[in-house]
Order: sequence, then structure tokens, then C-alpha cells
Amino acid sequence: MAGSEEELTGGDLTHFDSRGKARMVDVSAKGDTLREAVARGEVLMKPETLELIAGGTAGKGDVLGVARLAGIMAAKKTGELIPLAHPISLTSVQVDFRLHTPGKVEIQSRVRTTGKTGVEMEALTAVSVAALTIYDMCKAVDRAMTVQNIRLIYKSGGKSGEFRREGEEKWE
Amino acid sequence: MAGSEEELTGGDLTHFDSRGKARMVDVSAKGDTLREAVARGEVLMKPETLELIAGGTAGKGDVLGVARLAGIMAAKKTGELIPLAHPISLTSVQVDFRLHTPGKVEIQSRVRTTGKTGVEMEALTAVSVAALTIYDMCKAVDRAMTVQNIRLIYKSGGKSGEFRREGEEKWE
Amino acid sequence: MAGSEEELTGGDLTHFDSRGKARMVDVSAKGDTLREAVARGEVLMKPETLELIAGGTAGKGDVLGVARLAGIMAAKKTGELIPLAHPISLTSVQVDFRLHTPGKVEIQSRVRTTGKTGVEMEALTAVSVAALTIYDMCKAVDRAMTVQNIRLIYKSGGKSGEFRREGEEKWE
Amino acid sequence: MAGSEEELTGGDLTHFDSRGKARMVDVSAKGDTLREAVARGEVLMKPETLELIAGGTAGKGDVLGVARLAGIMAAKKTGELIPLAHPISLTSVQVDFRLHTPGKVEIQSRVRTTGKTGVEMEALTAVSVAALTIYDMCKAVDRAMTVQNIRLIYKSGGKSGEFRREGEEKWE
Amino acid sequence: MAGSEEELTGGDLTHFDSRGKARMVDVSAKGDTLREAVARGEVLMKPETLELIAGGTAGKGDVLGVARLAGIMAAKKTGELIPLAHPISLTSVQVDFRLHTPGKVEIQSRVRTTGKTGVEMEALTAVSVAALTIYDMCKAVDRAMTVQNIRLIYKSGGKSGEFRREGEEKWE
Amino acid sequence: MAGSEEELTGGDLTHFDSRGKARMVDVSAKGDTLREAVARGEVLMKPETLELIAGGTAGKGDVLGVARLAGIMAAKKTGELIPLAHPISLTSVQVDFRLHTPGKVEIQSRVRTTGKTGVEMEALTAVSVAALTIYDMCKAVDRAMTVQNIRLIYKSGGKSGEFRREGEEKWE
Repeated sequence: MAGSEEELTGGDLTHFDSRGKARMVDVSAKGDTLREAVARGEVLMKPETLELIAGGTAGKGDVLGVARLAGIMAAKKTGELIPLAHPISLTSVQVDFRLHTPGKVEIQSRVRTTGKTGVEMEALTAVSVAALTIYDMCKAVDRAMTVQNIRLIYKSGGKSGEFRREGEEKWE
Repeated sequence: MAGSEEELTGGDLTHFDSRGKARMVDVSAKGDTLREAVARGEVLMKPETLELIAGGTAGKGDVLGVARLAGIMAAKKTGELIPLAHPISLTSVQVDFRLHTPGKVEIQSRVRTTGKTGVEMEALTAVSVAALTIYDMCKAVDRAMTVQNIRLIYKSGGKSGEFRREGEEKWE
Repeated sequence: MAGSEEELTGGDLTHFDSRGKARMVDVSAKGDTLREAVARGEVLMKPETLELIAGGTAGKGDVLGVARLAGIMAAKKTGELIPLAHPISLTSVQVDFRLHTPGKVEIQSRVRTTGKTGVEMEALTAVSVAALTIYDMCKAVDRAMTVQNIRLIYKSGGKSGEFRREGEEKWE
Repeated sequence: MAGSEEELTGGDLTHFDSRGKARMVDVSAKGDTLREAVARGEVLMKPETLELIAGGTAGKGDVLGVARLAGIMAAKKTGELIPLAHPISLTSVQVDFRLHTPGKVEIQSRVRTTGKTGVEMEALTAVSVAALTIYDMCKAVDRAMTVQNIRLIYKSGGKSGEFRREGEEKWE
Repeated sequence: MAGSEEELTGGDLTHFDSRGKARMVDVSAKGDTLREAVARGEVLMKPETLELIAGGTAGKGDVLGVARLAGIMAAKKTGELIPLAHPISLTSVQVDFRLHTPGKVEIQSRVRTTGKTGVEMEALTAVSVAALTIYDMCKAVDRAMTVQNIRLIYKSGGKSGEFRREGEEKWE
Repeated sequence: MAGSEEELTGGDLTHFDSRGKARMVDVSAKGDTLREAVARGEVLMKPETLELIAGGTAGKGDVLGVARLAGIMAAKKTGELIPLAHPISLTSVQVDFRLHTPGKVEIQSRVRTTGKTGVEMEALTAVSVAALTIYDMCKAVDRAMTVQNIRLIYKSGGKSGEFRREGEEKWE
């Protein structure tokens, strides 16, 4: 009745069994190791919108402060949003922003856990929801903003080892 | 003690009051009208990943079926994810996909309500979470996928009227 | 771009479009009417377990009080649990129990709303979670309990009219 | 099988039926009217803690900004937290703070809806969670803070009419 | 002030203390061991309904695919639904179906964790919500379906040892 | 890219980084130890309201039973409510009450976990939501109740050691 399930290797999708049925992959036998993931994304906007956001940090409405919290809180909800994701007890979440004229906000999240499975989805979810929150708070003045280039930058921990996306600048 | 709050006009962000404090905008006085929003986005991937997804609809693991449900369910959670969004009782959610060789999945959501405020955020959230779910299900074979171009395509209903993004092809 | 979706009639499943894709059925055009649903179910158990439950109302541990609350709270979560269910603002939820020797607890829920779609799923969810809660609280003494016969008893309101399951006794 | 339930009058608790069983009170027959509630509470702390909070608005860590968002988001979760509360679609939530030397932060929430039942619990929940968030963010430097005097200040709308607590100063 | 709470033995319900007050049982002192639970249940329906479901796997609407996801996602929500259940980080969830003419769908869930308490409730919740989802998707054509025989089949791990329900066939 | 974050010491708020940006503090490197927290609070009310509550335990409507469950369930939701709180797998939650004539209900919660961070917020959240639930259930007869003196009584486990508030009586 028991019997440990192995992750498939090769070209197959691990979230399906051999008959194509969706499942939460079995990680029961994996060790608890420190795992980290970094993700990034961008919101493109009109220059005036960027100016409103930049001004906010000076006290007129802190768009990025709200988006940062939204991203952190969303990371904790990843297991509810992504159907086959494992629920994970995160041990650290950070969300940062960089503003680029004429009209771009860059978002970076860094997530850690000590657990049995990686936190890539948590990092990507934090970036996505932070981006959506920026959209929400600025949509009254700029409905045509776009969210771009949500991607995994770095991942460490676990059997699959380290991943580091090429050509990505390090944020100080 | 009462007194109805007006949405600010001009270049200001409505999610902040005149002193820069975040708030949920007061929509108490707005009428219940039919509102619709359409959003789109894309996931870029390796050709082999797209082939796995395309093959899945033939029975080896239905990535898009899972992503569709994730998007629909996420639309219902928008009010929990976006800090200042109003909770909205959705009356319709659809999520569709189009596959493009060599390596792109396009996602479209269409959301409706009969309520006091628009459903743009619900449509954008559905697309974002559907995209993240595709990433989750394929990440074991393609960690470098990127989510691109999440954007509002169409919006109708309410005082701010219709929005239609230029240059967007109609999906049949 | 707009265009109202009709519920399919005949032998088809309304939660799928004409190409078999899952969706939340469009109820935007439906009126807000009073809707009610009643559901029932049973938990079968050992006579000693029923005695423990019956005794609890006398002050040694109120299993049914906990199960009642769990059922009421679960009804409010139906839209999160059932993927294609519409989120509904319930206006009334009641959960009642009847004990039958030697070993059966009957559960009944009654749910109401004034809205665009019925509350059958809310009533069935309330009964199911109340039953699971009874199981949880008694499992240390009776792991073999079974949940039986969860069913819709009554439904009114909306275009599909009234449903009344035959042969069901009325609870006073 | 149907039959509208009336709220009990006199000294009885409306959240129980005539046999003492908990239920969600039936508000199906109530009209949709504008309803508002204002609640307040206080966090007492060491003078140094208040100074840290006051300094934060100048850019060293915005405790009140985080607490404000927490309060707004918690108001939306009231129906999940309070077992017999009706789920309500809020149309406005505001959370404000006033600092008093040597060591007190006052919190005020104002919540509105157009619905069938009042929003007192939403207003009180917003204040409570904003207070808990202040505690969380400052507990590393002041574990002995206390949350005091959470109370309803004002309520309007619905059949039970207006409530205004005596002796409460108006916040400009 | 501390002092470890023991689970009561004998005929008592562990979810209540010695004075009959509900509590979350203290499992702090228990070890983290691999725990597994298997649960099953059935949905009885008209033969035509079963045919619609069976046909769906061929591409006209995948009822079982949606129900499977609903069950997996519900397992992750068990701690929110069952009042005194411990929140558990699941390491594996599988949901399977077997169709029997003329009108029965059997559901089986298998859940694993490495933790301090068992996952029976998670397995039973997965089956219950998968069953409710089948009901939801087919109710437009068959309102009289019933959910039957939700039961624990197998449980291992922890101090209470293995449980195996008699007379249950093994699913290959 | 990695590098372990240290908790700041001295007079600073650990939930902000050195530039004042909110974050979830990194506890990845902390050990899993037994942690406990006890919190208390009070609800002040009219004597008649207290009598109704006291009578309820005799079977006319168990206000405290409902509030106890609400507190226990809220403790499990702390990570969703408090923006920068870590999600924690609780191993024990208890909520108790003491009634004092003429008009006071005292609430005490005791929460335990085996984890990397303390459970003070869980204990305080349990007390706060239990208090709000008492308010909700009695507000029809006593709108002027106040929630008072929510405070941490005791805390053990972790590097910051034991905290015991002075002058607090021990509950038997």
C-alpha cells in the first residue's frame, strides 16, 4: 500500500503520473535543507506614472510600500494559488524595487526556507503580485501598463542543485 | 461623521487620501452595473516544453487544464491578494490559451460582474496565476521560462467607460 | 468582444464550453432572487461513539456544537473549495443534527441567499464538513466511522425552479 | 420548508435559535442600504517605542503604513474569522492613527457597505489586527505593550438605526 | 506554566480537556515521522451522468480532472476547515477515480507527510471535496446524485500504529 | 547572492532592513525548539450581558464555546493576518475563559509549536478574535462592550529566552 514515488527524470512533467494524472509530487523522502530562490520582473509605464510612484516615497502615497507587503503576503499564499505546489513554511521573504526612467519599475524577491522542496514558485508569486499591486494602485492614471519578464534568477538547495540565470546583473 | 468620499481626478492616485495614506476607495455610491474585463499574457519557453504541453491535451498530462482552473480560482481570490482591491462577487470567469510554435503560450481571461467596481484586477490576476501554474508544471524541464506582457485588453462598464487596447487581435 | 453566454440545455455539462473547456458559468444576466437549499447526510458509528456524542451535550465535550460551527463556516468557504462555483454572499446558514441509536448522526443544513445563483453547493459543503468534523473529533475512539448519503433535499429560487427529493421526511 | 426567520427581540442573543443552537442569523429579507461603522482602539507602549514608530514615517521603517494595510486587509477577512458573521462586500475601508506622547497610538477604522447587515465587526476587526500588527513590528523592543479599549464609536444604517458612543471626540 | 499535555486514553474524546472544553490536542512532544493515509468514497448517479463523465476524458469536458484538482487543493485547506485539526505541511497528495456502470464513481485519495500528527482528515477532505465537485459539475443534469461511503481505508505512522479497514480491495 | 541576514539588535525594529524596508525577518538559521506563548485579554460588558453568557453554558446558547473555537481557528490564520509574521505549524492551542461579576469575561490562550520562531502573535490573535466573537454574539443586546488589556503573559523558547509579565495571577 505504501511505496515511495520517485520524481520522473528526462523529458517528462513531474506533476503528472505515468497515466497523465495531476498529482502533488511526493517529497516525503527528501531532506530538510536550506533553499533559496530569487525572482525578478518589471512593470512598464508612462513616465508620468513613474514620477508619481517615485514621489510617493517622499510621502504622497507609498505605492512601492504597499506593493512590497502584497508581494510578501502573496509568497505565503503560494500553496493556495498554485494547485500542485506544496505548502511551505517560509523562513524569509524580501521584496525590493528599482526605478528606471523613463518608465520602468524593476521588482526582485528573495525567498528562503528550510524544507523539502524549493521556493521558486514563492519567489515568482511574490514578484507577480507585487507587479499586479503596482498596476492596481496606478491604473486610474495609466491603464496601459504592462507586466514584463517575470523570471527565475537564482535557485539553490535540494537535489537539483543551483540555477543561475545568465546575464543577470547583481543588485547591490 | 459620514460624508461621501470622491475619487480624486487628475494625476493623483486614488488609492491614497490627500495625506498620502493608503485606503480602499469608497465606491458605496456607485451603481451596480455590468462590468467586463479581458486581460492577456504570454509564457515563453523552449520548443520542447511547448511540445510537452501540446501533447498533454492528447492525454499525457493536461498542463493547460490545470492552469485554466488555477486562473479561474485565483480570480476569486483577487480581493485577498491585492491589498486595496474591493471584494467582488464574480458572475463569470473564462480562461483560454493559444499555442504558438516555436515556444509561446498565450493566455486570455475574460471576467464579468454586476457590481460597483471594475474587474480589471481579477482578469489580470487570472492570467498571472495561470502563467505561474504553467511555469510550476514545466519547471522541472525548463527553468528559464519567462512570463511576458501581462496587460489589460478591454474593459467596459462603470463611469470611466470603455477601454480597448490598440493593436490587439481578436480571439475567435 | 462582449456577448452574453447562455447556459447549455439538454444533456450537456454547463461548466464546460462547447470545446470542453472548464469555465465559471456566466450568470451576469440573472436576477437577484431569494434562493434556498437544504441538504442532509449521515455519519455511521459504533454505539459507544454515539453515546459519547450524546453525553457531550450534557457538558463533557460538545462534538455537535463544534461540528455545527464547522459546517456554517465551511458554507462560507464553498467558493474557495469548489473550483467553478460562484462566490456567493450567504444571508442565512443553519446546521442541525438528529441522533439515532444504535449508531447514526443525521445532519441537515439550510442555506439562503438573495443572489444570481443557487446555494446547493453551500448546503452540501456545510453537511460534508460538519460530518468530517464529527469524524475528526471521534476518530481517536472509532476510526471506522463512515459518512453516508450526502444529498440535496430541497432547492428553490431561480429559473430552474423548485427541487424536492421524494421520500424525505420533514424535520420539525 | 421555507418560512422567514425573525431576529429575536428582548434580552436574547440572536446568534442562537430558540433551543440555543448557533446559527448565522437570516438577513435574506433585509434591504440593501448604506451602512457605516467606525471603531477605535489603542496600543500602549514605552516612550522609546513610540519614538521609533514616529520616526518611521520619516523613512526608517513605516510601522503605521504596514499596520494600516493589515487592518484594511483584515476587514475583508472578517467573515472568515468571526464564525457567525455574514460575508459582506465592503465598499470602503479606511484606517487612521494618532500618536500621543508619552506612549500611545490610537487607531480608528471606518468601514462602509451597501448591504443587508452592518459592518461593526469589520470595523472592530480592522482596529484589532492593526493593533496586533503594531505589536508584531515592535515586539522585539517592547514585549509589554498592551492593546486597549477596542470599541465601536459609530454605526448607521439598517433597522436598528444609529449608534453613537458618548464622550468620543471627533477626529478631524 | 508549561507542562506537556497527554492525549487521553480510554473512551474519551481527545479534542476536549477534562472539563469538556474544545482544544487543539498538544502534539509538541511527538516525533516527526512519515505518515500516510488513504481514504475512499463514492458518488452515485444516473447512468447518463456517468456516460457524460466517461466521455469527458475523451475531450468534451474533463469532470474528473477538475474534481482531482479540487480534492488535492482541499487537502491543503484541511486545517482551515476542521476546527481542531493541526495545520500540516503535506508532502504528497494523489486523487484517483474508478468508474463503474451503471452509475458510480469511486474516489480514492492518498496523502503523506513527515510530521507530528496523522493525515486522515486530509485524505477524507480530499475525497469529500472531489465528490462535491463532481456533484457541482453534473448537477445541471442530475440533481439527485448522492455521496456515499466516505471512509478511511489505511493509515500508518505515529504512535497509534497502522489501521487497515477490512474487506477493502486494493487499487492497482 | 546568498548570505545570512542577521536580526538587528539594539533599539531597531527587526521587521525593517537598514533602509527602512519591510521584510519577513530571516529565521532560516534558527533551530527548531519548543516554543510557548500565553496571552490574555478582557471583554467588559453590562451585567445583564454577562448573565446571558453565563446562562449559555447551561444550554441556552454557548457564547464561550463559539468564541473558543473562533480563537483556536484564528491562531491558525495568524500568518495570513499579520503581514510580516512567519507561517507556523502550531502543535497546540487552548483558549480558556473566566467570568467576573458584574461584567467582565477574561480570556486566556496558550499556544505551542516546535519551530524556528515564537508564537506570541498566535496567542495574541487567538485572544483578540475570541474577544471579537464575544462582541459579535452579544452586540444585539450590548453595543457598548469594550475589549481591554490584550497582552502577552508568558513566552518561552528561542534565543530571546523567557518572558513573564509581572503581577499576573496564575490560572489554575
